[in-house]
Amino acid sequence: RFGYFGEPSPEVVRLLFCNISECLTAGRVFISASGEEMMSIHIRDTRGIRLLQKEGIEVVLLTSDLDPMTNQLKEKMSKRTGCQVVTVAEEPLHGLKAMIEERKLDWKDVAYMGSDQQDVCCLNVAGLSAVPRDAPSVAINAAKYTCHKFGGKGALREFAEHILLQREKAKSQMEQQRIDRHHF
Amino acid sequence: RFGYFGEPSPEVVRLLFCNISECLTAGRVFISASGEEMMSIHIRDTRGIRLLQKEGIEVVLLTSDLDPMTNQLKEKMSKRTGCQVVTVAEEPLHGLKAMIEERKLDWKDVAYMGSDQQDVCCLNVAGLSAVPRDAPSVAINAAKYTCHKFGGKGALREFAEHILLQREKAKSQMEQQRIDRHHF
Amino acid sequence: RFGYFGEPSPEVVRLLFCNISECLTAGRVFISASGEEMMSIHIRDTRGIRLLQKEGIEVVLLTSDLDPMTNQLKEKMSKRTGCQVVTVAEEPLHGLKAMIEERKLDWKDVAYMGSDQQDVCCLNVAGLSAVPRDAPSVAINAAKYTCHKFGGKGALREFAEHILLQREKAKSQMEQQRIDRHHF
Amino acid sequence: RFGYFGEPSPEVVRLLFCNISECLTAGRVFISASGEEMMSIHIRDTRGIRLLQKEGIEVVLLTSDLDPMTNQLKEKMSKRTGCQVVTVAEEPLHGLKAMIEERKLDWKDVAYMGSDQQDVCCLNVAGLSAVPRDAPSVAINAAKYTCHKFGGKGALREFAEHILLQREKAKSQMEQQRIDRHHF
Repeated sequence: RFGYFGEPSPEVVRLLFCNISECLTAGRVFISASGEEMMSIHIRDTRGIRLLQKEGIEVVLLTSDLDPMTNQLKEKMSKRTGCQVVTVAEEPLHGLKAMIEERKLDWKDVAYMGSDQQDVCCLNVAGLSAVPRDAPSVAINAAKYTCHKFGGKGALREFAEHILLQREKAKSQMEQQRIDRHHF
Repeated sequence: RFGYFGEPSPEVVRLLFCNISECLTAGRVFISASGEEMMSIHIRDTRGIRLLQKEGIEVVLLTSDLDPMTNQLKEKMSKRTGCQVVTVAEEPLHGLKAMIEERKLDWKDVAYMGSDQQDVCCLNVAGLSAVPRDAPSVAINAAKYTCHKFGGKGALREFAEHILLQREKAKSQMEQQRIDRHHF
Repeated sequence: RFGYFGEPSPEVVRLLFCNISECLTAGRVFISASGEEMMSIHIRDTRGIRLLQKEGIEVVLLTSDLDPMTNQLKEKMSKRTGCQVVTVAEEPLHGLKAMIEERKLDWKDVAYMGSDQQDVCCLNVAGLSAVPRDAPSVAINAAKYTCHKFGGKGALREFAEHILLQREKAKSQMEQQRIDRHHF
Repeated sequence: RFGYFGEPSPEVVRLLFCNISECLTAGRVFISASGEEMMSIHIRDTRGIRLLQKEGIEVVLLTSDLDPMTNQLKEKMSKRTGCQVVTVAEEPLHGLKAMIEERKLDWKDVAYMGSDQQDVCCLNVAGLSAVPRDAPSVAINAAKYTCHKFGGKGALREFAEHILLQREKAKSQMEQQRIDRHHF
């Protein structure tokens, strides 16, 4: 086994962190007099989450104290998507590092979807990262992939398909390397 | 009566299957803390359903366990549109085949409106089939008609008018054939 | 006083009929499991209604059994806009004729805003008539004015300003005629 | 110290007045049969408010009797944004003048975000002023800055960043003037 073939393949993602606000939802919060808050998610995105879960990729949804969500709404969101919902600090990098190590993974095994200033560090370090089309340029510049779709309207599904495609590519590349090693 | 004139006319549709998610609705699910889920439908689309029903074309709405809907919401949707709401498997082809045979119809008498990967088989076999403008390309390629309108914003109405137009065409063509048979 | 100067000026509108579905609202109905239905209206449009009311023009909102609305929602809509809400038949022309005669007015004194097939007759006979930008072409062809704005997003406000402008024009024209009569 | 250097720097804003309807929200009011009214705000805009508050700029939200909002909804909105919500008269200029003097400020220290006819006076006198992209031209002409973003979809965030940028510019200009005074 040679070093060259043994190179890490960063595209085989095992874990996706995705911001709820502006990535899973369109960023809009509906407020009514009675105090009920409401958010909308897109069926195409929840199907994207399911595609990843089927392939053994864990999806964790992130929310921040900057965009307060009631605990009931977090629970509802978690139940609907089958994902853990985690509240992160204003700068999510450190909190997520612990979660990654717990799973014996590295940032290169992680995909990150964010939408704003506070996501820049994570967008930079993650193996794969994306922003919705309507993200501010500071986030677009940090992300490795900019979705054609808008947040809350298919961006997460698009990124999920991108992750699975990268994974296929990495797998077939590894397979090729294995064959090459046998034959030469 | 000659074989040529007797050719089946696939455009005289008797039954329309329409996906609720992304065809009748825009695919968005509103989630509130109290657990109430909400979807939106467009008046133009419910009028399209009524146009078909008036002409004796049955409209059946489809939902899938992939996009869970509470039973109450299904009932509400059924009452509002005057349509039966049927829950289909991830691959709807087989379940629908039974419904078609029950009505002594064939796939060529059926119109199908879908929006995603799981609808591809049905889009292929139905006599008429359509997707909303914003469907993924895998579904667009399988459909016979791509709507100019978006899902949940008039796509179903547009397809309903297309179905009625095809029906008119087929009828006048049959009438012409009848006249031709008399005269030659 | 000569016949020429005494010509009726059709643009001095006294009464506006406006469809609720697709003109005052964007045509979307939000449906939840508990049975609550919800519609959205735009602040810019309710301000447009107030502009007309201030100038003594009565605004009557129309709803049809084709697009069922609960009585409570009609009441809410009426209270919010300060308008009477009237349920019309599928073909609204005859029902409205009675209302117009009751007010000792004529169709030329009436403005009508509609959005679909069933509004065509009224769009044709009303002194002023308009459709939102996204109306089907059958309605656009019948209307005297096509709004740049979409239904439920400012179309009614735009038509209200158009009505007031026509009124100003008609008034200054009548004033000019009065001056001309004095001077020649 | 010379008069030239002592010139007032109008861009150092201390207070922002922002209309709720069509600036913080997209202008849409959701009405349900039970009487609950609902509005939607965007996470990006609430973050914009927080950016200003962090820099010591007070943000006051304005509502008018023209667009009635229940007291509960005002309270909710206030709690969610951390801003005072003030009900102003149809012509807000005089009511706001008192609030400005109370804070020992002048109109040049104030930023104003509005969207319609009734905001024209305030847009004219405020040190900085803005309208969302979809404002009517009468308001666009009066404002010093027209946002690229739509109301309720990031316009307030965009204006917040514009305010902070102007502030940075004004500060570095004042610093330069201080250095110049020392050296010449």
